[in-house]
Amino acid sequence: MTNILIIGAGRSTSSLITYMLEHAAANQWKITVSDADLQLAQQKTKDFGHVARAVAFDVTNASLREQLIGESDFVISMLPAFMHGDVARDCVRLGKHLATASYVSADMRALDAEAQSKNILLLNECGLDPGIDHASAMKVIHEIQEKGGIITGFKSYCGGLVAPESNDNPWGYKFSWNPRNVVLAGQSTAQYIENGQLKFIPYNRLFTQTDTIEVEGYGRFDAYANRDSISYREPYGLQSVSSILRGTLRMPGYCKAWNVFVKLGLLDESYKIHDAHKLSYTDLIASYLPNGNGPVKDRLIAFMGPEIDADVIEKLEYLELFSHKPIKRTEGSPALLIQDLLEEKWLLKPGDKDMIVMQHQFEYTLQGAVKKLNSSLVVIGDDEIHTAMAKTVGLPLAITIKNFLTGKFKLYGVQIPTVKAIYEPLLEELETMGICFIEKEL
Amino acid sequence: MTNILIIGAGRSTSSLITYMLEHAAANQWKITVSDADLQLAQQKTKDFGHVARAVAFDVTNASLREQLIGESDFVISMLPAFMHGDVARDCVRLGKHLATASYVSADMRALDAEAQSKNILLLNECGLDPGIDHASAMKVIHEIQEKGGIITGFKSYCGGLVAPESNDNPWGYKFSWNPRNVVLAGQSTAQYIENGQLKFIPYNRLFTQTDTIEVEGYGRFDAYANRDSISYREPYGLQSVSSILRGTLRMPGYCKAWNVFVKLGLLDESYKIHDAHKLSYTDLIASYLPNGNGPVKDRLIAFMGPEIDADVIEKLEYLELFSHKPIKRTEGSPALLIQDLLEEKWLLKPGDKDMIVMQHQFEYTLQGAVKKLNSSLVVIGDDEIHTAMAKTVGLPLAITIKNFLTGKFKLYGVQIPTVKAIYEPLLEELETMGICFIEKEL
Repeated sequence: MTNILIIGAGRSTSSLITYMLEHAAANQWKITVSDADLQLAQQKTKDFGHVARAVAFDVTNASLREQLIGESDFVISMLPAFMHGDVARDCVRLGKHLATASYVSADMRALDAEAQSKNILLLNECGLDPGIDHASAMKVIHEIQEKGGIITGFKSYCGGLVAPESNDNPWGYKFSWNPRNVVLAGQSTAQYIENGQLKFIPYNRLFTQTDTIEVEGYGRFDAYANRDSISYREPYGLQSVSSILRGTLRMPGYCKAWNVFVKLGLLDESYKIHDAHKLSYTDLIASYLPNGNGPVKDRLIAFMGPEIDADVIEKLEYLELFSHKPIKRTEGSPALLIQDLLEEKWLLKPGDKDMIVMQHQFEYTLQGAVKKLNSSLVVIGDDEIHTAMAKTVGLPLAITIKNFLTGKFKLYGVQIPTVKAIYEPLLEELETMGICFIEKEL
Repeated sequence: MTNILIIGAGRSTSSLITYMLEHAAANQWKITVSDADLQLAQQKTKDFGHVARAVAFDVTNASLREQLIGESDFVISMLPAFMHGDVARDCVRLGKHLATASYVSADMRALDAEAQSKNILLLNECGLDPGIDHASAMKVIHEIQEKGGIITGFKSYCGGLVAPESNDNPWGYKFSWNPRNVVLAGQSTAQYIENGQLKFIPYNRLFTQTDTIEVEGYGRFDAYANRDSISYREPYGLQSVSSILRGTLRMPGYCKAWNVFVKLGLLDESYKIHDAHKLSYTDLIASYLPNGNGPVKDRLIAFMGPEIDADVIEKLEYLELFSHKPIKRTEGSPALLIQDLLEEKWLLKPGDKDMIVMQHQFEYTLQGAVKKLNSSLVVIGDDEIHTAMAKTVGLPLAITIKNFLTGKFKLYGVQIPTVKAIYEPLLEELETMGICFIEKEL
């Protein structure tokens, strides 16, 4: 028997846990699903009593952490990224493998040498983004390089959106993952390289300097630049590329409307507004507008100037920003007050389907010719629980853990799915589940 | 004998130390001037060997800190604000009075009760801003209230500028204090109250939504809003005021030009630019501009649109931003690269005089009539060493310490100069030194 401990049973873990449970009997796995909220863990395991148990586990409880990890062979941490540290240190000390979907942190990196020396796997960045992006981009990069091609440009875009059939609000957006991350998105300068030149876009104009990309069958999307594209050169082996950019996708028009919040300054979580419940959302907007007379809507239109249009106004009206809707919270940062409103307006309703869109754009030279290749993925969720987000975050992790435990690859220390031994069997199995990239030479 | 320990002998301590040394013999003070750089301490004490000694002191050396504080009766910490903590804890534990020019920190506040119980003074916010602003504003506030007036509005502005006779660059600015603070100024949302309404100005438009104030004999100044004006209501006893704003003064046109750096996104210290020495300042600007063709200056003008004019361009040209001036540093945040340039261009040269300008604007009602009163201060420095900044930061602290040690007030625990017993003798003595507010009913 192999004992597998899953820590965290929240929103985006359903596909991971289901996969692990369904493959447990055949692989002689015994699964422990743990969460601070025991009910959440029990819900997830209820039909799998023969292979799984649910445990209440607050990860800050050091003695229980040591006990549960000590009883396991493989640990999967689905906690928020900043909480992996203690789990990872315990895993390496106790000689247990660990997998997360999060970026490799400095904490994790520091454990690499010891994990390698103990033949312990520390698998990271093995969800959607990071995860599927690494796997699918590296497959194409390696294929081009094996043909003798030289990659000169790489752009990669990903977005967690709402499926066309459930798209019933003017923003074209509903929350399929942590709303806070959506509200605070982009709050540091984006860095990338274009035609050999270092480029920066600060937050104050991130949502105005957008790209448009097209995915066959799904139309156009807005893309804003991610924080740090430059750091992808090294792990992807693209040190001499003359353009590299990673971006986030939204439905057309979203970025222009979101820019209103950025320009107003509402997406700040560094201070609290006291007695917020005495204000309406319209009062809140007014507090951020320069002095002026007349209705808040007119003042906002004047303030935004050419940066606003009828489509943007429709989106703002959908959020009831001009109709004196009361703020419920007594105290909170402006970002949190806006998040409250968006969580109400952008809820995935029963039956709603989300959609993941990813597109890589490669430019390369082959035997003197300049070539372009796009590789695109669209995944539609089943419903508001079995979302495309949960599938694409959880399945790569589950599949890769299975591949490791069944001996398909033997790698130790800190690993991410940029190596062929990991991404090849991963992409093959994802394809059988309909998670499949379409490549197109342009 | 009273033993006084001064910790820190850097740029803005010269007036403080001189005052303390000159008043030492008459008051039977024995002064220890300490600094991590012994030479700095020796320079400051060299003509006062009979009352003073210089000591090399790294404040992180806990045993020496305990020894030096233990030998003293009164400690003056001129360290950067974040370094006061250990000194303050040692002072309270060992039963020694302490004074700083810094804002009351949470650390300091936590020591209040113990200090009170031991009759220990923890004097803070007793420099220029905070310091002279508190003293001079509270004097007027108390006078208005004693006449039966009700204060309805309070605006207070302060700037460390260059004197007209030394103003030989188009920015009207030279560094009289920490350049880093000038470069990073305003990087959080300004909060104030205007006509009963909560108002916010985020960093992205802080330097565009400016006020203009006028000081008789010195003309007009730009003012941008400080971070948190609202928190001044309570210590000033102005809880029911309908307008409160604190702002920073610059020469006219400075803010419009500074906004170019803000809009470009250059004043960020959260990331580093590698191989910066391979770039010129013109390349740096180009990296922050949207894509375009033509000379960087033309592209910047197009980018800024109505936010740029000939005066702004003159200021940018003065900084050699369009002439491919090389960056010297190999690696640094964009904010630091800009700071390097400004330290070269905005240096107080030998003989240069700086200037402090402060203005309080009061609105109040008295016997049914609406009244306005301005109280203004201008201080000109002697030269580039004996600056108005050093005088106005150091003298309030020195005078108030003398007043405490000579029994002019008996207050303990955390104190700031908002109480009459502290501000009255302080303002009287400052007036004898030419640091004197002019009040004007409008």
